[in-house]
Amino acid sequence: MPQGKPSVVPDDGLTTRQRRQRALVVVHTGEMKGKSTAAFGLALRAWNQGWPIAVYQFVKSAKWKTGEETALRTLGRVHAETGEGGPVTWHKMGEGWSWIARPGTADDHAANAAEGWQQVKRDLAAQAHRFYVLDEFTYPIKWGWVDVADVVATLRDRPGQQHVVITGRDADPRLVEAADLVTQMTKIKHPMDAGQKGQKGIEW
Amino acid sequence: MPQGKPSVVPDDGLTTRQRRQRALVVVHTGEMKGKSTAAFGLALRAWNQGWPIAVYQFVKSAKWKTGEETALRTLGRVHAETGEGGPVTWHKMGEGWSWIARPGTADDHAANAAEGWQQVKRDLAAQAHRFYVLDEFTYPIKWGWVDVADVVATLRDRPGQQHVVITGRDADPRLVEAADLVTQMTKIKHPMDAGQKGQKGIEW
Repeated sequence: MPQGKPSVVPDDGLTTRQRRQRALVVVHTGEMKGKSTAAFGLALRAWNQGWPIAVYQFVKSAKWKTGEETALRTLGRVHAETGEGGPVTWHKMGEGWSWIARPGTADDHAANAAEGWQQVKRDLAAQAHRFYVLDEFTYPIKWGWVDVADVVATLRDRPGQQHVVITGRDADPRLVEAADLVTQMTKIKHPMDAGQKGQKGIEW
Repeated sequence: MPQGKPSVVPDDGLTTRQRRQRALVVVHTGEMKGKSTAAFGLALRAWNQGWPIAVYQFVKSAKWKTGEETALRTLGRVHAETGEGGPVTWHKMGEGWSWIARPGTADDHAANAAEGWQQVKRDLAAQAHRFYVLDEFTYPIKWGWVDVADVVATLRDRPGQQHVVITGRDADPRLVEAADLVTQMTKIKHPMDAGQKGQKGIEW
């Protein structure tokens, strides 16, 4: 990870401190594992800062992500009980939006994903949280269910100090352009190449 | 992330279930952020499985990683109080090993890193934990302070069901060869390129 001096000091009229405090749009993309896991790892830092965290899971699955969900909800409960860390809100498709959880037409899915995005927009406008994970949000963008121009404008114009982390393969180039920090997770080796399927504690 | 059918079914005499349960050596490498964060994100899954977790921080810093450390230690405390999740042990250089924490010769650093590795070996031999994060462990290997042949043999011969995640840039090719799952975090864009330095909640 780059540390120390930035390579360029921009002529933007901001002090280093102001620039440092500017909230980020982060994208984790690429074909490999680690996109969501790294986002939830970042959420641990946000929790430790006492920031309100919100996760929006844009792809529903019965099993995947349950470990992170349970652990982060537990940290949210600790906050409620002791005041340590920050509160955690977890919006999961299938509870309200349910767009992959139950059978439906493609249009239903699109409408539900769009409704999820409207929830994100309302929360950003209200500055409801300080650290947002839009998990697997690249897919509804890719499938045309959410307008990427609307996403880019909403992120650009969001008020206050709200960090947004977006995960998923095939991030739209306009989203990459709008982001401050983009990491690509690249496969060098995966156990499935050697015939090993996913397992608990690692994949979920 | 690959899902569903593995592309190859190996002729290794194991059932799919046995193969699935085989513990993994995971390496997160590459120049970009997310290597450690994704490892700590994986630890959330391990915690949710009730697995004993151990973190060995091979590079000491006053500030970096404190968010993850506090959050994971909190989850360990929840386990101690309620039985939820698993216990968490955090070995930090600077508390016992102190090899970057205080001024010293290169030899001191090497000896302390080697002692850290001996602790990992003892714990693996005793099956003390089930999920290990060897954070920034590629560096003492790269600098010749820990023998990569010893690392590879120890990982290969470790008993039982112990997952090991190793993070850091410039992973030794022999370590990559020995690993089951290797992800490279590649930079597409970083705020430092635009003159923005690290900030709390994101970098630590």
